[in-house]
Formats: sequence, structure tokens, C-alpha cells
Amino acid sequence: MPKLMIAAILNNEVLIEVSVEVSVMAEINHRIGVASSAEQVYQALTTNEELAKWWTWDVSGAGPVGSVIQFRFHGKGPDFSVVELQPDRLVRWRHSGEMPGEWKGTEISFSIEPENDQTFIRFRHSGWAGASDFLAHCSTKWAVFLLSLKSVLETGKGHPFPDDVHIDLS
Amino acid sequence: MPKLMIAAILNNEVLIEVSVEVSVMAEINHRIGVASSAEQVYQALTTNEELAKWWTWDVSGAGPVGSVIQFRFHGKGPDFSVVELQPDRLVRWRHSGEMPGEWKGTEISFSIEPENDQTFIRFRHSGWAGASDFLAHCSTKWAVFLLSLKSVLETGKGHPFPDDVHIDLS
Repeated sequence: MPKLMIAAILNNEVLIEVSVEVSVMAEINHRIGVASSAEQVYQALTTNEELAKWWTWDVSGAGPVGSVIQFRFHGKGPDFSVVELQPDRLVRWRHSGEMPGEWKGTEISFSIEPENDQTFIRFRHSGWAGASDFLAHCSTKWAVFLLSLKSVLETGKGHPFPDDVHIDLS
Repeated sequence: MPKLMIAAILNNEVLIEVSVEVSVMAEINHRIGVASSAEQVYQALTTNEELAKWWTWDVSGAGPVGSVIQFRFHGKGPDFSVVELQPDRLVRWRHSGEMPGEWKGTEISFSIEPENDQTFIRFRHSGWAGASDFLAHCSTKWAVFLLSLKSVLETGKGHPFPDDVHIDLS
């Protein structure tokens, strides 16, 4: 973490010494445009049935602000608290639970932005401690799942786990 | 840009005043694993013929450090100077030319990391002024092109422009 030291010295006496730590959080950003209404996008982000069509088939707990959504991959996976809902405009989740460890303290937001003949979805996964290999992996994987979301909205068929697009051999 | 003001005051006199501007650069990160050797990955990133198979069919100028690679999409597109080459390990480009405007001053690096039965490619596009909508768009689009790179390495067939996967209706 970058650290900055500032000292004011007058007549060989240290008058003031300030230490500033700058915490630079890393984040993942994506943006896709879908041929769907803002209402349809909002549904796809806020109900178990629709979330299961694009991220993982095993999802439960989606509901109003305060709900904890449990996303599972072979029985394990992240929990997210729903912290903000603006119908047809914004969905915001805060990671809760213990895994994956690097996601602790992170937030995910989906901003829904209609424009001409499509609806843009601006995705952010913010609050990472740094741009680790795991962040880079998740960045690519989020793109895959957002294209799965685009596909389910436009064709009715997505590619949720375990039918997701593989980005490595693991 | 975050700005920090620090002032030391003693007996109502301002002894020192420091203004610190913290410039937080935004970046795009991705990581994929491919069933190919580090040599094959390096080739795919350093020759016109191979670059044309996964990013855009219209590429020229690839060569040793100092070369300027011209990537074209319908006749327009970015130029990148090759600034560092470590055979089978690292490829680093610096954006040159004028477009797209938000790419001015940015750098792209591909780190090639063999691990067990696959080779990881760690991608960074760094030096952006901020996490704009265009950065978010490019982040998703880079994932698409890196999966095209994975595909060409593993199957011989990629999806370079103009056969690239669309992420919006533009």
C-alpha cells in the first residue's frame, strides 16, 4: 500500500510529521448491452429463478433489501446481502460469509441504463485489496457470466454453472 | 482525483501547507489458461500472422522492440509500440497514435506463466485515467478477444474482428 511521509523541519527541529496511507482498492468493471427492457434485466438480477439461468443453477435467498443470496458451485460458494434495490435501475450486493476469502469486504453492483434500442448493464465488483491473479481470473469469468446473462435475456438460454464457458483447465 | 491538504498551524501561524494529489489509475485485468506451450503463446502475441487470428484480421508492423503494430477495425484503430519482449515470458506494448483517445498513455502487457499442464496468460491494460464506461466496455471486450486467443491456440480457430463476439448492439 503506498505510504507517504511528510515532515516539516525548522531550525533543525521536527515541527510536524504526518504519515498518510493511501489505500488503493482494485475493482472489476464490465459493460454489456442487451436487447431487453430494464424491467427484464432487473428481474434477471433479483429473483432466484432468473439468477439460476445465468450464474449458477444453485441459488437461493434472493429477495428484498436485507436478504442474503446464496450462490453455490458444487455445494460451496459466496453469500451476498442485498444492500440496495432501485427497481429497473440498480442492484447492489455486499459480500457476506467467508468464501472466497478474497471477496470478503467486496461489493457488486449492476447499474441498468436504457439507451435507444438496448439496455446497458454496467457491472462493478469493487473493494478488492489488490489486482491479484484471482481478481484477474474473476474479471474474465464475470465477462463470461455477463455474456451468459445477455444470452438468457435475448434467447432464453444462458450458460450458468455447471454449463459455463471455461477460461482455463481447472 | 483525490486531493489531500495538510497544514501545520502553531500560535495561529501557518507553518507549513502541503497539497498532495493522489492519482489513481484504473486498469483492466484478465487471466486465462490455455492448453499450449509458452512458445506458442508468445508466437500468438508477436507476429502479424498470429495476432490476426484472434484480435483483428487487419494487423501489420509486429516485430522486435521499437516496432509499431497497427491494429485496424474498418480502417481505423490503435497503434502500439512494442516496448518489452522476453521470449516465451512477457510481451509489453505502449499505446501510440491518437485513437481511441482514452487509450492514450495506456500500456498492455501479457505475462506468460506455464503451470502444470497449461500456460496462463495474465493480461493488463493499465494507465487509464478512470473507470469510465469505455473502460468497462473494453474490459468485457478484452475478455472476448482473450477467449478468441485461447480458442485459436487450442483449436486453430479464433474469432477475430469482424467475426468477434458482440457484447452490445453497436
